[in-house]
Amino acid sequence: MDVLNLGMVGGGTVGSGVFHALQQNGEVLARRIGVRIQVRKVAVKAVDEPRPYPIPHRFLTTDWRAVVEDPEVHLVTELVGGTTVARTIVLTALRLGKPVITANKALLSAHGPELFREAERHGTNLYYEASVCGGIPIIKALREGFVGNRIRALYGIVNGTCNYILTRMARDRADFPTVLAEAQRQGYAETPPDLDIDGHDAQHKTGILASLAHGTWIPASRINVEGIRSVTPLDLEFAAQLGYTIKLLGIVKQLNAPESDEDPTEVQVSVYPALIPSAHVLAGVQGVFNAVFVRGDVVGDTLFYGQGAGKDATASAVLSDLADAALDVRLGTRRRRPAFVEVPGRIRVVPMDEIVTRSFVRLSVVDRPGVLARIAAVFGQAKIGIASVIQPEGHTGEVVPLILMLHEAPDGAVRKALARIGRLPVVKAPPVRFRVESLS
Amino acid sequence: MDVLNLGMVGGGTVGSGVFHALQQNGEVLARRIGVRIQVRKVAVKAVDEPRPYPIPHRFLTTDWRAVVEDPEVHLVTELVGGTTVARTIVLTALRLGKPVITANKALLSAHGPELFREAERHGTNLYYEASVCGGIPIIKALREGFVGNRIRALYGIVNGTCNYILTRMARDRADFPTVLAEAQRQGYAETPPDLDIDGHDAQHKTGILASLAHGTWIPASRINVEGIRSVTPLDLEFAAQLGYTIKLLGIVKQLNAPESDEDPTEVQVSVYPALIPSAHVLAGVQGVFNAVFVRGDVVGDTLFYGQGAGKDATASAVLSDLADAALDVRLGTRRRRPAFVEVPGRIRVVPMDEIVTRSFVRLSVVDRPGVLARIAAVFGQAKIGIASVIQPEGHTGEVVPLILMLHEAPDGAVRKALARIGRLPVVKAPPVRFRVESLS
Repeated sequence: MDVLNLGMVGGGTVGSGVFHALQQNGEVLARRIGVRIQVRKVAVKAVDEPRPYPIPHRFLTTDWRAVVEDPEVHLVTELVGGTTVARTIVLTALRLGKPVITANKALLSAHGPELFREAERHGTNLYYEASVCGGIPIIKALREGFVGNRIRALYGIVNGTCNYILTRMARDRADFPTVLAEAQRQGYAETPPDLDIDGHDAQHKTGILASLAHGTWIPASRINVEGIRSVTPLDLEFAAQLGYTIKLLGIVKQLNAPESDEDPTEVQVSVYPALIPSAHVLAGVQGVFNAVFVRGDVVGDTLFYGQGAGKDATASAVLSDLADAALDVRLGTRRRRPAFVEVPGRIRVVPMDEIVTRSFVRLSVVDRPGVLARIAAVFGQAKIGIASVIQPEGHTGEVVPLILMLHEAPDGAVRKALARIGRLPVVKAPPVRFRVESLS
Repeated sequence: MDVLNLGMVGGGTVGSGVFHALQQNGEVLARRIGVRIQVRKVAVKAVDEPRPYPIPHRFLTTDWRAVVEDPEVHLVTELVGGTTVARTIVLTALRLGKPVITANKALLSAHGPELFREAERHGTNLYYEASVCGGIPIIKALREGFVGNRIRALYGIVNGTCNYILTRMARDRADFPTVLAEAQRQGYAETPPDLDIDGHDAQHKTGILASLAHGTWIPASRINVEGIRSVTPLDLEFAAQLGYTIKLLGIVKQLNAPESDEDPTEVQVSVYPALIPSAHVLAGVQGVFNAVFVRGDVVGDTLFYGQGAGKDATASAVLSDLADAALDVRLGTRRRRPAFVEVPGRIRVVPMDEIVTRSFVRLSVVDRPGVLARIAAVFGQAKIGIASVIQPEGHTGEVVPLILMLHEAPDGAVRKALARIGRLPVVKAPPVRFRVESLS
């Protein structure tokens, strides 16, 4: 059987997970693809740092160049994270014509097109299944499984930390800081947690999925992003009463049906916490799990569910890419499925202000007659219809919550109306607003 | 751009769906893979028969050999169904070295190994993503996405007709014959419906998934199969009260952890209606939708959800295979991922009698003191524990239902005990029993 040597850069959580999985299942993988993948060296920051799975010392080095440039190394994994050294590592390997497997969504988000270009220039390839939703083979599904589809809509729960926090908040009626602190203690959230809870990690992943769905690279800068800091147990409770669950979603939605090839395809690409119908399969995704709901014009509605992070789930995706890369090297087909394929056709990423959605609004108002009339007047002037109003019972005191469900309206109009409402003397805190996604 | 010619055999529901999808999205598919797939001829039973999407007459012929044997045809789709002519069509194409794409699970179930052998012998390949769960790329996920995993367990809702019937029965409290008749009127069930509702279609699909998961071909004859005819609204109602939903499941479960390579891996492969926890993601799969829950030793728990049948969803899977086949032809890598890869290692499909599960039992008993004692005595003698008993209220008359939840016990023991109970004079109808799958 052919043997290919793997040079690993990064031996931390994911790296040691990959090492371990290859020890465990390398033989069955070899039988399945007809190529044996053999770890030759693993470059790490420090030989003796603790790692989830042990890697014998004879594999370890602190010199990543020695690994990448070793002429006996045929395949390279970049599992160090970050966007500076990681970029150099990947570029170095690609320039040597070596296929690179990465789990690094931040790197792709920041430097995707440059890396894709270098891979093409040097007749090699970049594989990144592990960069989005850990063990869920969503990139393979989009690129290969749905190769005959136009992707009409994609809604992803792509950040396990946020989903864990929202699930716990809903279940235990606990507030955000309490659940976040607990998640940090249990290792479900990092310190600082900003990358996750402010939506930037979801933004990187959503950008990759949007780009693959539409065949145009969509940079992170064009993706509107809002995190989950403003969600309270009260919101989750009222959403539930109305038949909704609040999830942080990565959204990629085609908004028009272009009549000719000259017309641009209008696409919404955003990340925000949204109300989704509790009966929808996506609403049932609990805890650290991830899921991506994909609507293709041929296949219809589909969902992919699994663990989005963690050493083992991510290792599963790296092994999938390693198998593809090994076959490509052995068969001389490194450009079989290029890392990114530009599909001609203009894509217009529609600015958030133009996006039309329904809204859930929570206001903190003084408990006095006439308050609703003043708020309704602002929405009325902005031509935003109010679908329902809830003045929850059991709240006493000077300031009480007021929940409104708004009809569909452009985001900019809602934003401006809420700014005006926030300045009303009867409104005592900045309005909180979440969009409603029917997913239909 | 390279062009490959496609010869289609079968232009009915799926065939016309594929033709239509290629018309709609052939161009974007070509851009994505760098090869254009062009329909050359479509062999049909009768040129003028009605079909869901029209196919222009210039493509049609009634002579399938003229399509398959046309030297200008590079790829062949077999979408006629059945296991006789379809077998001849596939063998003819494979012997000409042409890759064949099929959606025919019955054919694979009956003749898989023969077809795989012929494909190998003639240096070509057979692609069958569309044969299991329509649009869900589950075969790609198992073979490629989870190539680095050992599949510990797989639970599939793989028959949309059964899932539709069970969903409607649970929602509307309607009985089986009523819902079946309505499903037949609406086109969700065929006439006769036996292949679906007796579980044979699920058996074919489960056999394919089990074989791929374990690298040993598992013939249908070794798969225990039970359909959904015995499910009543009462069962669904009591199951729901106990926190369960009843679904027809295809089950592939590894039962032991072999210590050495000599020990066989023991596997359960079966199809039966089972109680699953209502809070589980699989329980939320409604109507005609399919879903496959897969537990890999590296990736953990995953779920794949989508439409399991229909012209469009199935066409999506055929297009995915067409893309792979086209790349394989163009790059000269037809055996890149052989249709079936035997992985060494002994597999023992455990006979149903040895399988240990919990059970839900519904008895029709005379409403008289002492009845439960006599039933309990039989279970006691068989060393089968009773976890709970429900004597539902609101039932009057001579014969009333009695629900029992049994602790874990070997299937054979439960079967024998129920046969004895069925012969008790106080039991007035054959006992109905469903297994309980915790999915944990």
